[in-house]
Amino acid sequence: MYTFETKLRVRYSETDQMGYVYYGNYASYFEVARVDMLRSIDLSYKAMEESGIMMPVLELKSKYIKPAFYDDLLTVKVIIREIPQTRILFNYEITNEAGLLIHLGETTLVFVNMETKRPCNCPEILLSKIIANFKN
Amino acid sequence: MYTFETKLRVRYSETDQMGYVYYGNYASYFEVARVDMLRSIDLSYKAMEESGIMMPVLELKSKYIKPAFYDDLLTVKVIIREIPQTRILFNYEITNEAGLLIHLGETTLVFVNMETKRPCNCPEILLSKIIANFKN
Amino acid sequence: MYTFETKLRVRYSETDQMGYVYYGNYASYFEVARVDMLRSIDLSYKAMEESGIMMPVLELKSKYIKPAFYDDLLTVKVIIREIPQTRILFNYEITNEAGLLIHLGETTLVFVNMETKRPCNCPEILLSKIIANFKN
Amino acid sequence: MYTFETKLRVRYSETDQMGYVYYGNYASYFEVARVDMLRSIDLSYKAMEESGIMMPVLELKSKYIKPAFYDDLLTVKVIIREIPQTRILFNYEITNEAGLLIHLGETTLVFVNMETKRPCNCPEILLSKIIANFKN
Repeated sequence: MYTFETKLRVRYSETDQMGYVYYGNYASYFEVARVDMLRSIDLSYKAMEESGIMMPVLELKSKYIKPAFYDDLLTVKVIIREIPQTRILFNYEITNEAGLLIHLGETTLVFVNMETKRPCNCPEILLSKIIANFKN
Repeated sequence: MYTFETKLRVRYSETDQMGYVYYGNYASYFEVARVDMLRSIDLSYKAMEESGIMMPVLELKSKYIKPAFYDDLLTVKVIIREIPQTRILFNYEITNEAGLLIHLGETTLVFVNMETKRPCNCPEILLSKIIANFKN
Repeated sequence: MYTFETKLRVRYSETDQMGYVYYGNYASYFEVARVDMLRSIDLSYKAMEESGIMMPVLELKSKYIKPAFYDDLLTVKVIIREIPQTRILFNYEITNEAGLLIHLGETTLVFVNMETKRPCNCPEILLSKIIANFKN
Repeated sequence: MYTFETKLRVRYSETDQMGYVYYGNYASYFEVARVDMLRSIDLSYKAMEESGIMMPVLELKSKYIKPAFYDDLLTVKVIIREIPQTRILFNYEITNEAGLLIHLGETTLVFVNMETKRPCNCPEILLSKIIANFKN
């Protein structure tokens, strides 16, 4: 298991008239957390795309346990439970400042060679970093 | 089963640098389709909120089968398979102009009394319309 | 002067907790209207990009006269007052269902050759269509 | 003059298929910067709304000098040049990591009493903080 935590603050643009974070905006929170996780192990999603590998999303699941509100400072925990092959599964746990779990998420992404447009293996550099940081 | 179809065109703002519709934007397509379905049976989500009932989302699932592109005219099919009680489950099937299925979605929403902030039953007016339009 | 009108309905995702359309979302309404205008004269912004010309925005101005609300059916009027050269200026007037003017906008876009990344002239096909539809 | 700087990183969701930050997303960057500025002087826009004063935007101007790209770490400088009365004018200067000025913005907001829905004066607490930090 590899875990990582990042924080982000809810923007006004992300709220809706219910006064909650709009339910479609969690997907971008997951993206921010995934990319911050990569950065924390000296990898850059930007560089990965520039090297010819992109990671489109295949599947998304979200459970809305409690709402998030404007200006909340949220903690997004990213969890990788399995060593990736051509796909990588991320789990997300979002807690608010009171420490309450408000959201559970899950995304499956696939590594795609941008030239051939075909799935490919997890790049060696990412794989080795994940393995090096993996804990049982 | 109750089904309904609506169309929407992909906006430039909804694309990302991969050239695809950003994966977080499907949630708003589902919302547009849900609301259009209500409108088609002379109901208005806006009026429902004004009458004191809101419908926050409890759960979201998305399968990204093929990408959607800028300017694509998408058809979103909304399906209600079960008579709602305090919760209502919507399924979505998105096809592109070539008729290819590109996306499958599912959302569970709960009826909430805005005053008590507690779950409540599906409003009678919505329930009767769904039942009247239900087909086996 | 060349004018064109299109309609769009405010989405829930576009509201904020003030209960208004978030002020940053008008820019995407302008984009929808510009593209619909092009489509109305048998042009496609998508095809223009595919032919190697893109139109990044240089300048944006917005006046928020009255708020727009969830589910409002807005009319966006697009106005071109001058024959474009390397730049094209669009004005926008948004009215709500009551016919009230709620928003004024203005964008300046530049034609850019995607290969050279340099400004270029308005493509002949667009120019001739604008001229053909121009009225004093 | 009162100035403040904050940093933010471009999200994937904020790019478009041109590979640039979508032109409508700068407005939310301005909002993030305004709110961070308030926070830096121990004020909270959230608390202001809770106390019954909201600040809708009256006017927005943006100049797109150079594009911003995915993953760029942008610096947003907020400038208040005049002591606010019922309106407050913010200027924004956005620079990228290379120190290049890429964007100029301007927003005029009005203080509104949420009960009466009428403009009101800048709250004393904000006014005194701005005055205390004002430099010629």
